[in-house]
Amino acid sequence: MKNVVAGVDIGGTNTVFGLVDKSGKVLAESHLKTTDFPEVTNFVKALGSGIRNMMKGQKDVELMGVGIGAPDANFHRGTIEHAPNLAWKGIVPLADLVKKEVKVPVVVTNDANAAAMGEMVFGGAKNMKDFIILTLGTGLGSGIVVDGKMVYGHTGFAGEVGHITVVPGGRECGCGRKGCLEQYASATGLVKTVSMMISEMREESILRDIPPSKLTSKQIAEACAKGDPIAVKAMEYTAEKLGFGIVNSIVYTSPEAIFLFGGLAQAGEMLFKPVRDYLKKNNYVLFKNTVKILPSGIPESNGAVLGAAALILNELS
Amino acid sequence: MKNVVAGVDIGGTNTVFGLVDKSGKVLAESHLKTTDFPEVTNFVKALGSGIRNMMKGQKDVELMGVGIGAPDANFHRGTIEHAPNLAWKGIVPLADLVKKEVKVPVVVTNDANAAAMGEMVFGGAKNMKDFIILTLGTGLGSGIVVDGKMVYGHTGFAGEVGHITVVPGGRECGCGRKGCLEQYASATGLVKTVSMMISEMREESILRDIPPSKLTSKQIAEACAKGDPIAVKAMEYTAEKLGFGIVNSIVYTSPEAIFLFGGLAQAGEMLFKPVRDYLKKNNYVLFKNTVKILPSGIPESNGAVLGAAALILNELS
Repeated sequence: MKNVVAGVDIGGTNTVFGLVDKSGKVLAESHLKTTDFPEVTNFVKALGSGIRNMMKGQKDVELMGVGIGAPDANFHRGTIEHAPNLAWKGIVPLADLVKKEVKVPVVVTNDANAAAMGEMVFGGAKNMKDFIILTLGTGLGSGIVVDGKMVYGHTGFAGEVGHITVVPGGRECGCGRKGCLEQYASATGLVKTVSMMISEMREESILRDIPPSKLTSKQIAEACAKGDPIAVKAMEYTAEKLGFGIVNSIVYTSPEAIFLFGGLAQAGEMLFKPVRDYLKKNNYVLFKNTVKILPSGIPESNGAVLGAAALILNELS
Repeated sequence: MKNVVAGVDIGGTNTVFGLVDKSGKVLAESHLKTTDFPEVTNFVKALGSGIRNMMKGQKDVELMGVGIGAPDANFHRGTIEHAPNLAWKGIVPLADLVKKEVKVPVVVTNDANAAAMGEMVFGGAKNMKDFIILTLGTGLGSGIVVDGKMVYGHTGFAGEVGHITVVPGGRECGCGRKGCLEQYASATGLVKTVSMMISEMREESILRDIPPSKLTSKQIAEACAKGDPIAVKAMEYTAEKLGFGIVNSIVYTSPEAIFLFGGLAQAGEMLFKPVRDYLKKNNYVLFKNTVKILPSGIPESNGAVLGAAALILNELS
């Protein structure tokens, strides 16, 4: 018998889940449409039967546990709480519900914390004790690891680096405040910055021909690679704000590395180089040259499933 | 035989040290003038004989270890590194030197981390797992505790909250950058803010009659208590900047409490109330009403010695 775990990534639209062994090999993967389940109890049943179906497809495997990454998830309480992007309102005791369905241990945390666990167990942070991962997607999520342990804090919600204020009085944030890091250093933030640059700069740009609502960070990165002046400026501005956020983050836990993950991080060196340059100039003196800025060592394609699997593997060990 | 430890607080001018038992009782206290010892080896000898003298004054006590709080101290390496306010230049292997002198375990950390240990072992954080202490003196020091453990980070220098940028392009900081929190939320910062308010406001104030170089945070707090308009405005501004720094700090480790310690914290409710009000309005939604803003539970007078004693007690246990 081979021990496996299930890693589940619940997103606003889709839920991806897979069977993962201890080496980080994804043996099977499947998915559900989250929006098909207005009732969480029906979702849990569908997830349970999905996992059982995957198990049937494998020879001699035993399910040891289930790890779940989900928006607004609380590790301490095993809940999803007031998630604006899910139909399940209020406080959802997800870990308990899934546990009753699958009869093995279940842990939940938010997707960025799951990504951090994935990085630590299977990725670039295997030999690190102190690091931070920033997931630069629609928003900016973060997971903080101190002395080899995930930081959950008193509430279970620790690690919301996307909501430090980097521009007092700046862009409106979904949290009701202004100038949060995620309004600048995320795929969405980069798109907003292009709109800003279009208003401020005179240069020609193919980005002027795309409606902002259709524009993606990938298109901007491609334009940047071709030297489009608006895209280049927007990427520089994004890197500067991200660098500012990183410099302000380093003083808390003095990490060995900051991993960048998610859509915006796909821009690669166009983003990483100016961020590193910013740190060289602006990092607090005690931390100069002590922090690596690294791409995630987990493939984007199954990062979420691996992260959730790492979460439960870590809990079981 | 009664087990005791020595707590040592090395400051730029004075070094205070004391014998402390496990209950936090200071059995004896003594001091040295740090500036009398341009050579660290001579300082260590004097400290050793000072501790031995204190031991002789006690009946049936055994020294179990020595904890030291010092500026720019590195817990991992047991060193003081490039401390601008000490005569001992470069990297000083202080823990090793003292260990050779006293023949018991020795640990060092910076003074704010020692204050955090004091708070956890003897003070208001006895039953807390996640908290932050901010020491508001000449500068702003900080100690961060996560899940019951001091955060030292990859470098051993973690917890430099005084050096987050709260006013981009703001006041010059000793670290070579601008707008660091400690330039606003410290005793020195409050004095600078009074100068700013004097330049901007028309109101009468007794603070206009004191040279800025002689002005203390205590005088400002006293003027504030009497309703002096400049002092009141300066305290509000200070609380706002401190509140901003605290709100940005909470997202990292989600602490149960923020303790305020040191000269500026002596202003009491004149400072604490507007900070709490700031949090009510501006704290990130997930952390609203989850964080207490508290005065330190350790008396200012022997806080440094108790903190250093707590550091070694924690290490021995």
